[in-house]
Amino acid sequence: MGHEALDRVATPFLALDRSVVEANAARLRAHLDGLGAVLRPHVKTAKSVEVARLLFDGGVGPITVSTLAEAEAFADAGFTDVVYAVGIAPDKLDRVIALRRRGVDLVVLLDSAAQAVEVARASRERGVPVPALVEVDCDGHRGGVLPGDPAVLAIAEALVSGGAELRGVLTHAGESYFAYTPEALTAAAEAERLAAVRVAEDLRAAGHEVPVVSVGSTPTAHAVTDLTGATEVRAGNYVFFDLVMAGIGVCRVDDLALSVVTTVIGHRPDKGWIMTDGGWMATSRDRGTARQPVDQGYGLVADLDGTPYPDLLMTDASQEHGTLSVRPGSAAALPDLPVGTRVRVLPNHACATAAQHDRYHVTSPGSRAVEAVWPRVRGW
Amino acid sequence: MGHEALDRVATPFLALDRSVVEANAARLRAHLDGLGAVLRPHVKTAKSVEVARLLFDGGVGPITVSTLAEAEAFADAGFTDVVYAVGIAPDKLDRVIALRRRGVDLVVLLDSAAQAVEVARASRERGVPVPALVEVDCDGHRGGVLPGDPAVLAIAEALVSGGAELRGVLTHAGESYFAYTPEALTAAAEAERLAAVRVAEDLRAAGHEVPVVSVGSTPTAHAVTDLTGATEVRAGNYVFFDLVMAGIGVCRVDDLALSVVTTVIGHRPDKGWIMTDGGWMATSRDRGTARQPVDQGYGLVADLDGTPYPDLLMTDASQEHGTLSVRPGSAAALPDLPVGTRVRVLPNHACATAAQHDRYHVTSPGSRAVEAVWPRVRGW
Repeated sequence: MGHEALDRVATPFLALDRSVVEANAARLRAHLDGLGAVLRPHVKTAKSVEVARLLFDGGVGPITVSTLAEAEAFADAGFTDVVYAVGIAPDKLDRVIALRRRGVDLVVLLDSAAQAVEVARASRERGVPVPALVEVDCDGHRGGVLPGDPAVLAIAEALVSGGAELRGVLTHAGESYFAYTPEALTAAAEAERLAAVRVAEDLRAAGHEVPVVSVGSTPTAHAVTDLTGATEVRAGNYVFFDLVMAGIGVCRVDDLALSVVTTVIGHRPDKGWIMTDGGWMATSRDRGTARQPVDQGYGLVADLDGTPYPDLLMTDASQEHGTLSVRPGSAAALPDLPVGTRVRVLPNHACATAAQHDRYHVTSPGSRAVEAVWPRVRGW
Repeated sequence: MGHEALDRVATPFLALDRSVVEANAARLRAHLDGLGAVLRPHVKTAKSVEVARLLFDGGVGPITVSTLAEAEAFADAGFTDVVYAVGIAPDKLDRVIALRRRGVDLVVLLDSAAQAVEVARASRERGVPVPALVEVDCDGHRGGVLPGDPAVLAIAEALVSGGAELRGVLTHAGESYFAYTPEALTAAAEAERLAAVRVAEDLRAAGHEVPVVSVGSTPTAHAVTDLTGATEVRAGNYVFFDLVMAGIGVCRVDDLALSVVTTVIGHRPDKGWIMTDGGWMATSRDRGTARQPVDQGYGLVADLDGTPYPDLLMTDASQEHGTLSVRPGSAAALPDLPVGTRVRVLPNHACATAAQHDRYHVTSPGSRAVEAVWPRVRGW
């Protein structure tokens, strides 16, 4: 297609193994098959229409977004079944309504009567009933209403009586990112389901219809064994995976689809360092594995064909400099990488690393050819 | 000019106080006045032609860049005196030579004979002598040749005999970001100067001309009292400053020009949290103050007019959620901020926070009007 190959594109840049994305997508689909819930991928990790199409066999399907910029870009590409899974700020309702008028079934999230009143007011004033999900807190990680809190009924009442629509409930097991055993992950998935179903039942008992019960995170979606009462599962990171997910056992390092390609620009043998042209501007400042049993620095380092060097990490970063060195305590030797050598850095957190870039260079394992260049959605 | 005001622009976004940038620029110019060296601002922090013009009274001047994308964008805007202060990767020499052919005096950096051989080869083959600075290590922070290392002469010889140009030496006191007293900062500045001058003198003793002796960092540029032997000073962060710089005493919180405007989307009174729509996608994952005596979380929180709330920090972040809470140990009360309230988050690290955005919304202290929207240079 005329794209420069991996050994020619100006570094640093993102390399994306398409077949790894496809395998990750197939694995989660297979896991959820028969559990009775729809998969609604979160596009916040890849922010790429082309990556999302891989998840739907080239077509479109239900998605979750983290920004209205994503909702608008994916609407342009034909994705019309969208949950905006960040609590709604009233100032954003104009854009929500504009999307609904375009035919996008965009659903907002909220966890307070104050928000419900604003959603209802906008619905009435603009003549466009906006559907909303009530956010449920299943593990104290972020926002949401606690199961059993009477605020849930006040929120539902404010929506329905005010002219908006109660679409259902949504929860996210943020604490599952800190679960380190299969049992802990399955327990987190069950806690997530039970919290959402409990609130849905409370709402039904009060006479509301609750068509949507939405649960999920990458760790719990892969661990869940029972989705009774849930109608849909969300997961985002799984399309790429990363070292944090490998650290909690949700994937293997081989399942990482994304890497940052950088070039060696120098050596400090007195310090055991190799310097590259990829700093935190290319990897992000995310050091998610610092909180895990195995700290991977700013990332594991592999050769340009994807084979990791023994215990070689990106251990430090300034804006446009990366420092590679051997994992502390390892007996591995620093590899001999001449100036100009290209390496791949496997990231801690794919969402954060991808966000540093405007595009993906799409390739296949074992090949240096770039099949395509896919843009990312940016901004808000 | 028809721009939406600070209380209307879609959050999160960057607000930039123009007059604070101007004051920061004037302060450093005044400090360096009479010390006998030229100021060569590093544009890697703002990556904005419009911000750079503020530093040169609306005109152009010598600049430092961290990427060739910056060099190209600034060349388009008439900036033709440019140092690319990241060690050169041989694959980038084609773009360097293309810029020189456009009339840009672009100078590269290197610290090895291997790089010098490649720069010389490209110079000969393309018929364009590329000038280079030798990077000197003054404090063990990153790359560079140690003063006294005979490699310096081999590098110079490879450049000159091979058809390139030795332009001089450059050093950067990266460790000054960890100096916490005026004395330590001045000592770092003096160590930086001495290292660069020492290597310049070694090169002159070997018969080389060394027209450029380049030193500097934001901390040392503000602390330096003697620039004998140095020809230019580099600093980048000072145009915006940030909480890391305030933490080492180089500026006050009032000198911070940049903030992230976010909107309150919820509350968790049981946890003492206020939730906003600005997460790490808007602030970056940079937690530079975590290593300082006063940890500022993801940033200090001020109202939309810039007045800080007592001890209110952004204490946690997910991709599109920020958590605000009172500084641990503080007796301050959590302010009452209704859903929809806009706040400003003052960043740990301006370079990293700005990099999460595509543009600045330019304003003045005490005003909510947006005077201009300035784009940032992105990518490599």
